Amino acid sequence: MNSQYNEVTESFPKKRGPWTTLSSLKIYENPWISVREDQVLRPDGKPGIYGLVQTKVATGVVALTENLEIVLVGQYRYATEVYTWEIVEGGAEHGEDPLQAIQRELVEEAGMISDNWELLAKDIQLSNCHSSELANLYLAKKIRVTAHSPDPAEPMEVKMVPFKEALDMVYDGKIVDAMSIIGIQFAANKLGLTR
Amino acid sequence: MNSQYNEVTESFPKKRGPWTTLSSLKIYENPWISVREDQVLRPDGKPGIYGLVQTKVATGVVALTENLEIVLVGQYRYATEVYTWEIVEGGAEHGEDPLQAIQRELVEEAGMISDNWELLAKDIQLSNCHSSELANLYLAKKIRVTAHSPDPAEPMEVKMVPFKEALDMVYDGKIVDAMSIIGIQFAANKLGLTR
Repeated sequence: MNSQYNEVTESFPKKRGPWTTLSSLKIYENPWISVREDQVLRPDGKPGIYGLVQTKVATGVVALTENLEIVLVGQYRYATEVYTWEIVEGGAEHGEDPLQAIQRELVEEAGMISDNWELLAKDIQLSNCHSSELANLYLAKKIRVTAHSPDPAEPMEVKMVPFKEALDMVYDGKIVDAMSIIGIQFAANKLGLTR
Repeated sequence: MNSQYNEVTESFPKKRGPWTTLSSLKIYENPWISVREDQVLRPDGKPGIYGLVQTKVATGVVALTENLEIVLVGQYRYATEVYTWEIVEGGAEHGEDPLQAIQRELVEEAGMISDNWELLAKDIQLSNCHSSELANLYLAKKIRVTAHSPDPAEPMEVKMVPFKEALDMVYDGKIVDAMSIIGIQFAANKLGLTR
């Protein structure tokens, strides 16, 4: 285990909007997330703590065939203990362009590529009460099959679904992952497709 | 600080879908989140770790006046270091009904009540790669003013915006909070309001 209690080396106190950070301690770190606890003065001037999760930039893609079928991937999510159907998603490695990261994921998870990418939504705050995680969502059109190199640690089912059916899955509560919901809704808006 | 490394007392090994949990260690806990690290066998049978954040149930409400104005609250988010406009949100305390929690938040943050509540979306997974956080979103119609008791630790601006303007804010990237984006789009779908 990689976790240690390390003093974060910035100069304190530090103003953060109406908050003041007095000190910061790294609580935990693994290759995917880190957790720190700050001693703060709250907006009302009273002392408190703020526990914060830091992550990679999250990326997701609404990947559509020429016939407007969307790629959905199915997997068991360890964190929420359910099997979910989602758009293709992944995290951008440190310093990696989020667009390149999601292009890589589309190959790794679904064996698909596209020459036709656009940004749907940038810097979406997934859980801003206690996490700094941001998500970038993309639309890839006219996707086509390429060589497939799946990650054996992440076994996934892949299926193609008519886009309007995916939109129904969102509103019927059958797609419950926030990035997937937002991506599909933004794509529907951009493409002028409603239910 | 309340954090300690505590062995989680369940019986192991434990199957979780295609994963096996071998042991679990509580890394950190504050009144809002806890973090644990599990030793696991991944779906491919190889050993690994899984770091997990656990939170309260998140709740949010698209709160509308009779004239279809929505309540938006503005605040500086410590975690993401930006000022954001969002729907009214809050966490359900342990054992608290999420609906009651968000009814309480609507009073505390905006000084509003409603007799007309419905569920928009249940158990939305906000960040299911490393967090078990679930969100329930509600629609409250015909809201009206009541006595206002704001939390001094959370100073917020409150503004009323025509619902269609809020929908534009979503698609123009001016509302970036995931629960707000999802809630506003589900409300638009339910009410048959498009751009």
